[in-house]
Amino acid sequence: MNSTVKKRTVLRFKNGQMESVEDKIVTEFPVTVKINEEEFVTMVCSPQYIEDMVIGYLASEGVIRAYTDIKNIWVQEKEGYVHVTIDKLNPYFQNLQNKRYITSCCGASRQGFVFINDALTAKKMNGISVELSIKDCFQLMNKLQQSAATFQETGGVHNAAICDKNGFMLSRMDIGRHNALDKLYGYCLKHHISIRDKVVVFSGRISSEILLKVAKIGCEVVLSKSAPTELALNLAEELGITTVGFIRNDSLNIYTCPERILRES
Amino acid sequence: MNSTVKKRTVLRFKNGQMESVEDKIVTEFPVTVKINEEEFVTMVCSPQYIEDMVIGYLASEGVIRAYTDIKNIWVQEKEGYVHVTIDKLNPYFQNLQNKRYITSCCGASRQGFVFINDALTAKKMNGISVELSIKDCFQLMNKLQQSAATFQETGGVHNAAICDKNGFMLSRMDIGRHNALDKLYGYCLKHHISIRDKVVVFSGRISSEILLKVAKIGCEVVLSKSAPTELALNLAEELGITTVGFIRNDSLNIYTCPERILRES
Repeated sequence: MNSTVKKRTVLRFKNGQMESVEDKIVTEFPVTVKINEEEFVTMVCSPQYIEDMVIGYLASEGVIRAYTDIKNIWVQEKEGYVHVTIDKLNPYFQNLQNKRYITSCCGASRQGFVFINDALTAKKMNGISVELSIKDCFQLMNKLQQSAATFQETGGVHNAAICDKNGFMLSRMDIGRHNALDKLYGYCLKHHISIRDKVVVFSGRISSEILLKVAKIGCEVVLSKSAPTELALNLAEELGITTVGFIRNDSLNIYTCPERILRES
Repeated sequence: MNSTVKKRTVLRFKNGQMESVEDKIVTEFPVTVKINEEEFVTMVCSPQYIEDMVIGYLASEGVIRAYTDIKNIWVQEKEGYVHVTIDKLNPYFQNLQNKRYITSCCGASRQGFVFINDALTAKKMNGISVELSIKDCFQLMNKLQQSAATFQETGGVHNAAICDKNGFMLSRMDIGRHNALDKLYGYCLKHHISIRDKVVVFSGRISSEILLKVAKIGCEVVLSKSAPTELALNLAEELGITTVGFIRNDSLNIYTCPERILRES
């Protein structure tokens, strides 16, 4: 497997002195996805769990509707290619990728969407499949930070986990914010793990892109150490997703859909 | 102008108490660029200096070779559209965008490149147009942090500046890492400001994407508060760019091309 961290000699200035030291540097690895032998996308990621990442990415983009739509997937690890065979490829999605969503051209008006394929693939959360106490929120964030060994070593990755309220089920790191979530999603699809009653815990900012990824995965709650953006919160309200941010020490903010957070800590 | 920060009522848990407070949330604003009336790209950004950002983006992607290639640019601010008229549009770049660079298909072998258009537009820095002392590095990073008011308010943006060794010339913030750099680049192109003897100071991680943006802008030195990635450092060596990272308090790391950093602090 390609390494997520490499050693490198750097010049360090510290305490008024310059010295040559060995440092650990996080790697970036380009992965090109070919669907039915045609180049579909190139993503730059941390070189772990690449098959899961590609499965999660294709599902969240709507290229596949189920894991079983993939007839074959082969990771050419050293070269950074993933070859995917899909029988029922929908050319619709390839054409719409990164095209702007304009309310007037679609039947239903969905506030806050920027891209057409997001508006088509993001799931709306109705009901309450998971409830967390304030204490659960702090404990899950603490667990994420404890598991974030590579970040502490190199200062260069995002960490994400999918868990139930009793603790972690699965955590992944990546230099790309959304890749970490795609790796989690791909694993769950492959292993038929139900997601609706789980929670996403994330080290980084809740941007609209991250919020949409949570909606595509199908989680009702996202917890973050960082701040959300206003567009992400509008989307969270539209999609019925609970967002909790700035989880630090003994304080946190509940931004949207607070009904899934129990008031007694 | 659309606002970069909006107020919002959130539930804050602090010191064992839950209360409803007014919070400031950073905005995300979708901008769709139309070139000669055709949709070219949609980017999500902070809604300031949009014209500069689009000019910088088109130049760094190689869609234009000079500012004068743009015959007309009109920002439809409320709706988030930018209409650009270009006479000599090169269809080559549109087709190559996000296509993988494979060494064997091109004449020259350039190590570390992932995308074809990056390999075509990134500039190689020969010689030394700017030299910094260790003290300059600390002072420039301090100035960036002092200017980062929105980040301190909302915890959600990246800050970048282009400066000479005596202090800031120009600083910009954005929720998107590369947008902040495109805004700087566009301003410099529009106002005929020479870049070669300037330095990029950045709040975030030096990923390959950021390093390439620095090379496309044409700066010889990038300073960051955060860590670089290994691919970014390989590209920096290939392109002759000095990278200094982890600039914090009284320590920093010099990763590549140390000849532009003077040893006496």
